Amino acid sequence: MKIQAAVMGHGVVGSGVVEVILNNASNIAKKLGKELDVKKILDLRDFDNLAYKDRFTKDFNDILQDNEIKVVAEVMGGIHPAFEFTKALLESGKSVVSSNKALVAAKGAELLKTAREHHVNYFFEASVGGGIPVIHPMYDCLAANEITEIAGILNGTTNFILTQMIKENTSFADALAMAQKLGYAERDPRADVEGEDAARKICIMASIASGKHVYPEYISNEGITNLTLTDVAYAENWGGVIKLIGYYKRAENGKSECMVCPAFISDDSQLAHVNDVFNAILVRGNATGDVLFYGKGAGKLPTASAVVSDMIDAAAMEDNCSFLYWEDSDHNELLAADEAKHEYYMLFDAANTDKLMEKTKELLGNVKVLSRENQPKNEVAFITPLIAGKDAANFVASVEPAGTLLNKIRVLEY
Amino acid sequence: MKIQAAVMGHGVVGSGVVEVILNNASNIAKKLGKELDVKKILDLRDFDNLAYKDRFTKDFNDILQDNEIKVVAEVMGGIHPAFEFTKALLESGKSVVSSNKALVAAKGAELLKTAREHHVNYFFEASVGGGIPVIHPMYDCLAANEITEIAGILNGTTNFILTQMIKENTSFADALAMAQKLGYAERDPRADVEGEDAARKICIMASIASGKHVYPEYISNEGITNLTLTDVAYAENWGGVIKLIGYYKRAENGKSECMVCPAFISDDSQLAHVNDVFNAILVRGNATGDVLFYGKGAGKLPTASAVVSDMIDAAAMEDNCSFLYWEDSDHNELLAADEAKHEYYMLFDAANTDKLMEKTKELLGNVKVLSRENQPKNEVAFITPLIAGKDAANFVASVEPAGTLLNKIRVLEY
Repeated sequence: MKIQAAVMGHGVVGSGVVEVILNNASNIAKKLGKELDVKKILDLRDFDNLAYKDRFTKDFNDILQDNEIKVVAEVMGGIHPAFEFTKALLESGKSVVSSNKALVAAKGAELLKTAREHHVNYFFEASVGGGIPVIHPMYDCLAANEITEIAGILNGTTNFILTQMIKENTSFADALAMAQKLGYAERDPRADVEGEDAARKICIMASIASGKHVYPEYISNEGITNLTLTDVAYAENWGGVIKLIGYYKRAENGKSECMVCPAFISDDSQLAHVNDVFNAILVRGNATGDVLFYGKGAGKLPTASAVVSDMIDAAAMEDNCSFLYWEDSDHNELLAADEAKHEYYMLFDAANTDKLMEKTKELLGNVKVLSRENQPKNEVAFITPLIAGKDAANFVASVEPAGTLLNKIRVLEY
Repeated sequence: MKIQAAVMGHGVVGSGVVEVILNNASNIAKKLGKELDVKKILDLRDFDNLAYKDRFTKDFNDILQDNEIKVVAEVMGGIHPAFEFTKALLESGKSVVSSNKALVAAKGAELLKTAREHHVNYFFEASVGGGIPVIHPMYDCLAANEITEIAGILNGTTNFILTQMIKENTSFADALAMAQKLGYAERDPRADVEGEDAARKICIMASIASGKHVYPEYISNEGITNLTLTDVAYAENWGGVIKLIGYYKRAENGKSECMVCPAFISDDSQLAHVNDVFNAILVRGNATGDVLFYGKGAGKLPTASAVVSDMIDAAAMEDNCSFLYWEDSDHNELLAADEAKHEYYMLFDAANTDKLMEKTKELLGNVKVLSRENQPKNEVAFITPLIAGKDAANFVASVEPAGTLLNKIRVLEY
């Protein structure tokens, strides 16, 4: 007997999904006990030169109304019409698997609820970390474990740019240009460098860990566009590197802290050694301690293989629902960024450095002063004690007569 | 409704299993949709001071014949009677989950077959990597992916010792004594330092990846007892570190290469940065590329939480069998260690170094000569080209008149 599937979207990932299913057919059949076949592919474009061109359709209803099709891969991207299509498919009793992080981050709670109500599954392993299995281990293998923190290098493009800045002393602009030339960054790189892509991914993981939907629009999100080689040099002097980190942390009052920001990460951390386009996700549990998942976070075949693994799982589970679930929520469970406490690296251009340091000592107590080669006379950098975001802002306002803040970066301990 | 479970063995892991189930009861019930309760605990000792002392039994039949019990955790260790107990439980329609790597490595194929015949599951996530989810992701999330290679730092004790040798310049004997003092090494440390523990773990993973049982007694297994600080210094000069690696590799002729050995690992590898008691497992797939799983590979709560996750999975799956399966095999699929090709680090004590190098050049062509501080005049170290194990041995025999081999370590690329 065959399990019939459909693929919506025949772009990079979608064509990879078809390729992985065709190339691994015997392996999949052996694992699943049944063949997995792609009966229909939805795309508005024509693909007349493909061997499987007869499977294409331009009409979503050809998939929705086909009762043989049990599992559908949604690899179209974007929220509309992917959302409407996914919801209709789940309501019709088909499982849907997705690589679409924008959709999962925006509508995950609603789609998981729909899936559960109709005894089918909505899976999205490929939406975080590409081919790195992390969602599945989080909700399944770590089921007997409270996840207290997650911290990840979730975006390969920004990690490539930061690696160039750190290892090759390349400026942000030049590193970005190189990433674009190599095809790692889009022509419009904002979703990557401004942290939007990482925000969607950490929100998906935070939703799993907390059991409540964490919406990207409610979390604080800083990208890497303001980083300079000066910051990189001070991070090195401090004993670490700057990484773009998406993190989630269960706060003490039942709230969650969730954020994307550049951060000072100590060389002692595994995350400090994650370079180039690689991703890594550290999951901290009350029983397991720290577990780290590492690999290439993107790419056609890694992402496609994660989608196909989900398809196999969905096919095998038939009418059973998985544990993967979270409830909807408002943003009241989120700790505001100005409440969260961190150590900060601060960089000042100070007309009067003595006055700045005097005022700093008065307001913050002792700080850890940093230095770098060829440091200009008027440049001051230090690490603050642990302070709330709003206190950091107040401090900066208070000392501003003595110096202008050039940058402020959180220190994170992972 | 409750799912009734039993725990066999109330040692470190077993008591942890009970603790994790009791402490996470509401969380588990939420995920599973049912409560998970420990009805019976098998141990020959008395535990009269425990709150749950009434659940203890000394008679295995109390568990075997209890039809309410659906899932049993076997955390006794050893092969007998764990094997007989597990087999009887599976035959009676109960799922069994295990942390017992010796048993899985010795009898996995037979027990998986028994489980499948009786529509129950035999899970053993905790047998490799403690709390690091790796078995489950390997067979499940990576289902649409051929696993071509696995390489792991699989033993925390030896990795602690090697880290002390590398970072603190401590001798093997002193580092071992420190590991024993800290409770990382047993009083009889042979299972760790001679590679037996790592061999069981790589055999379990090789069995999953190849689909055929790989028995520890048929793989080549070298421990770390012969390593000296001299080797460590040459590894550093070469640009890396020495790690005890268990690896599996699909060879070209349909055979498998599987081995435990100390190896030179380049500083560019993620595995080089895995220190102290941490474990890491790199899984190389044809679609995913390299994925690395990292964490503490042992410990009461991490291991117990992996066991409990398996219990939850087994409870949720009821009569469904998972994909986790491999067939029995003879050792004919294994490539003999003397056929496998590697670069080797070789260290000689040479009465006549010129003669040794001349002979080496004649037999192997150019080698990469290494150096170290305070290198004795009669000491020669180099990296050979890629050669088969038997050719390496023949080479050593041929040059022995000119120098005595002190050590020989494979160079592995991960």
